[in-house]
Amino acid sequence: MKTNIRAITLAVSDLERSLHFYRDGLGLSSPGIIGTEFVRDEHTPGGSVAMFTLDNGLILSLYSRTDLALDAGITLDRVTGSSMSLGFFTDSREDVDRMLQRAEQAGGAIIRPPVTRPWGIYAGYFADPDGHLWEAVYFLNGMPE
Amino acid sequence: MKTNIRAITLAVSDLERSLHFYRDGLGLSSPGIIGTEFVRDEHTPGGSVAMFTLDNGLILSLYSRTDLALDAGITLDRVTGSSMSLGFFTDSREDVDRMLQRAEQAGGAIIRPPVTRPWGIYAGYFADPDGHLWEAVYFLNGMPE
Repeated sequence: MKTNIRAITLAVSDLERSLHFYRDGLGLSSPGIIGTEFVRDEHTPGGSVAMFTLDNGLILSLYSRTDLALDAGITLDRVTGSSMSLGFFTDSREDVDRMLQRAEQAGGAIIRPPVTRPWGIYAGYFADPDGHLWEAVYFLNGMPE
Repeated sequence: MKTNIRAITLAVSDLERSLHFYRDGLGLSSPGIIGTEFVRDEHTPGGSVAMFTLDNGLILSLYSRTDLALDAGITLDRVTGSSMSLGFFTDSREDVDRMLQRAEQAGGAIIRPPVTRPWGIYAGYFADPDGHLWEAVYFLNGMPE
């Protein structure tokens, strides 16, 4: 079996707001909300989703919390919190600073201003409008292989 | 700026248990726990981490909840829940079934047995020992571009 993660689906409370944050704010490319023909009912998740295909082929999807809960067959209160962070690797310290600024301007929050970590990175954290945690990272001694 | 997500860091409550789940259970490749020389203190996160470099260059990291909270400068109770799912794309229906079985055997849980979705996928959900939600997906009409 292949061991690739190909998709990251973030559960969001307001699809339009999150599309704005990631597309207009962070500058990720997306055709907008698709799949609206698959309408949610009491038992079946809807298909409305905003997808971003990133440079390395990874798909970042925004999907409503309600639909993710229905799709996975779990209760809505299970779709909460953020027990992970997603990492953007940048080419410079300035890009780390810039990404945090862009996130804040677009309706996110700077969670931790960038600092240099002892393991050779300069990195800061921000949160998207739903509290999803992101880390912007610059490697002081070159990217990992 | 590049728009690549290069790292997914999952917060876990037991690093050894999670390493076992992902390496021995799901079959992902990892050199094991590294960075143990960076010891956690009251204010500074430790460096102990288990990393998996996937086929597409994406890095999946397992990091303790305590260290992620310290590193991001947030309270521990903020590092909870699962408001996302991570997607493995497989080559067949059988691989979807197999991945769920492997996850269950390795200490995870099958959250939703595979079903065919109206948008052309056969997919099921499982959770890792910390409740992180994963979806194993087979595209009935070929992979997305």
